Amino acid sequence: MRLLLIHARRFSYEVVKPAVEEPEPLGEAGGSGAFENTLVVFTSVEKGDDESVVPGAVSEILSVFNQVKASSIVVYPYAHLSQDLAPPFEAVKILGRLYAALKEAGVEAYKAPFGWYKAFTLECYGHPLSELSRSVRRSETGARRVVEKK
Amino acid sequence: MRLLLIHARRFSYEVVKPAVEEPEPLGEAGGSGAFENTLVVFTSVEKGDDESVVPGAVSEILSVFNQVKASSIVVYPYAHLSQDLAPPFEAVKILGRLYAALKEAGVEAYKAPFGWYKAFTLECYGHPLSELSRSVRRSETGARRVVEKK
Ligand SMILES: [Mg+2]
Ligand SMILES: [Mg+2]
Repeated sequence: MRLLLIHARRFSYEVVKPAVEEPEPLGEAGGSGAFENTLVVFTSVEKGDDESVVPGAVSEILSVFNQVKASSIVVYPYAHLSQDLAPPFEAVKILGRLYAALKEAGVEAYKAPFGWYKAFTLECYGHPLSELSRSVRRSETGARRVVEKK
Repeated sequence: MRLLLIHARRFSYEVVKPAVEEPEPLGEAGGSGAFENTLVVFTSVEKGDDESVVPGAVSEILSVFNQVKASSIVVYPYAHLSQDLAPPFEAVKILGRLYAALKEAGVEAYKAPFGWYKAFTLECYGHPLSELSRSVRRSETGARRVVEKK
């Protein structure tokens, strides 16, 4: 799993049209969102990723979230961070787990829908922690690291 | 070399502070820029890249530029698209060559300075060609492809 974390003064998006045959339904989140002082987590789920990547990803995201003192987190599906993507079905499942795990951690979390072309506006603060990338691999190490940080 | 091409209704940036020991001097371009209907080329120069990647990159960029009918191109150094980055000295050199080659191709091209933390605002159109990624490798193939497209 590849993550690009952007601390944004403002971030908003709006679906334009489907990008895959069966895009994720526009459920509770709807097809748009607007946020201030948010941590946008552009996320590529990669081939071989499974639910075991989630704890490591949550740990990395919350670490940055706490350091930059953002008000919320937006999980934003993003296919352009990897050349070795998981199939859409797997990606939707793991992104959903990541989103659920962040909410369970007690932070204000949102998720943009998978499989849609989206327009967006992003205002990146520009401070040293406002743009970071992470790679989280399926491994025992990932799980152990989270436990150690608790 | 990894490229993330974003067709932006608006894009602006402003340097905040140095991110490396010897950031690229703020020359003619200065420390800020603002653009409309532009193709932003977020670029990671990777270990092993040399000048031979430039023709392939130019070809890919111009192909998208022409399809989306942007007014200008902004080469934006971006370390977060690869986990195997070239040393800064090499990156600055190859980014400079890419910028020069785009200008030589007759398009309105700009380049943001390397080695600075920068604040930016990006407004992505959201149409199907408004977000694309490309990987360009050092190879004879890359050079041949450009010739074929001329
Ligand atoms: Mg909404
Ligand atoms: Mg300027």
